[in-house]
Amino acid sequence: MATVHLIGAGPGAADLITVRGMRLLQQADAVLYDALVQPEMLAYCPQAVLIDVGKRCAKASTAQRFINKMLIDAARKYPRVVRLKGGDPMLFGRAQEELDALAEAGITAEIVPGITAALAASADAGISLTSRGLARNVLFATARVGEGEHASDWVKPVLAADTAVLYMGVKQSAAIAQALLEGGMASNTPILIVENASLPNSREWAMTLAELPQAASWELVGPAILMIGEVYRPALAQTEQRRAVA
Amino acid sequence: MATVHLIGAGPGAADLITVRGMRLLQQADAVLYDALVQPEMLAYCPQAVLIDVGKRCAKASTAQRFINKMLIDAARKYPRVVRLKGGDPMLFGRAQEELDALAEAGITAEIVPGITAALAASADAGISLTSRGLARNVLFATARVGEGEHASDWVKPVLAADTAVLYMGVKQSAAIAQALLEGGMASNTPILIVENASLPNSREWAMTLAELPQAASWELVGPAILMIGEVYRPALAQTEQRRAVA
Repeated sequence: MATVHLIGAGPGAADLITVRGMRLLQQADAVLYDALVQPEMLAYCPQAVLIDVGKRCAKASTAQRFINKMLIDAARKYPRVVRLKGGDPMLFGRAQEELDALAEAGITAEIVPGITAALAASADAGISLTSRGLARNVLFATARVGEGEHASDWVKPVLAADTAVLYMGVKQSAAIAQALLEGGMASNTPILIVENASLPNSREWAMTLAELPQAASWELVGPAILMIGEVYRPALAQTEQRRAVA
Repeated sequence: MATVHLIGAGPGAADLITVRGMRLLQQADAVLYDALVQPEMLAYCPQAVLIDVGKRCAKASTAQRFINKMLIDAARKYPRVVRLKGGDPMLFGRAQEELDALAEAGITAEIVPGITAALAASADAGISLTSRGLARNVLFATARVGEGEHASDWVKPVLAADTAVLYMGVKQSAAIAQALLEGGMASNTPILIVENASLPNSREWAMTLAELPQAASWELVGPAILMIGEVYRPALAQTEQRRAVA
């Protein structure tokens, strides 16, 4: 029985995968990849059967069962199978569901970590998530806005952290801003939005929490994260200076 | 004037640096590296002048000024300078101080992200930091225990997060456990300690918060992180099962 390698592809740029991840791709017989994986990264494995298991067009839960089945089928058919996931598999990667399915099928899984978007965005922006005297901790979260019992569970940890990064939240910017303001976050709290971290078409915007709702109407072409905290104050000041000059 | 590349070496294993990081090492004229960087990683740059700027033996603040100076001197002397830091530069890497010093000296810096220890430890353990329905956010923090106005600032964000990872805290396990229990964390909260994540001599231990103080007396040989949250409940159950059998 094969070992499946669950590999973090990283934030997007083909050379921000790990050396181990690249080498395993180069040796793979079959590669199952996500919608977030850039085509350039698949150039590492021209020899492999490529299986697109992107979730963009299907209901998430159905899609996950389908991916689990595809993964198990591939592991029974090919000796070297890679499951390539955008970012890091263990952080918002829903790897646990695939790991559990593989374990139930008696298939060994090995995990290769990947660069998560927040780290790539921080490198792009040149701003540390933590900074001596200013930010000693950082929270990575997803903001679930809407109805239901747990709809605002994300607010308290975001308020408690020095720096917070919200994955996949920009479309809900208005609701996010409202929840944070109601929770007591200062309206002039600096926010940095980074789209397509690490890619040539990467973009970033600094703004205050009060200005955040405007982002809900932006036409973003790629994944974006929302970074919140005092470490972004100098970036905000630069943006405001540019506006004053213009 | 040179561009300095500030590169995250990742958690330790030489092949868990990014492909971009490896390629820049292969082309470097001078490499300034940390105490956390493994010797195997320096095999990527046999052509480079190697400068050890490990901080283990000096006072942190003096050492940082010294590193800043070494970095600027190297950038003035060599065309391709790499500053190689354990983990990711933007997360507990104190990169901001080096970036600010370089900017003041008029030297361009480019940052290459690295795999942070928490992601490598999660891959080693096969346990996701986030998990549907169980953990929707994760906090990365350092636990400053002891005297002073801000001594317990880390407690509240740890309590608010679903999963929390404390970097560099194992020696203070007793004080950490006391602070979390006083803050209201349940004494049976599962904890996973991972030492030397990604390295061949990696070790991990699962325990409850009540049992955490014992870790303070352990003889650890490498960097260790402390991971807290319900996602580690199955790992804890396995440990308790093994104990019951033994």
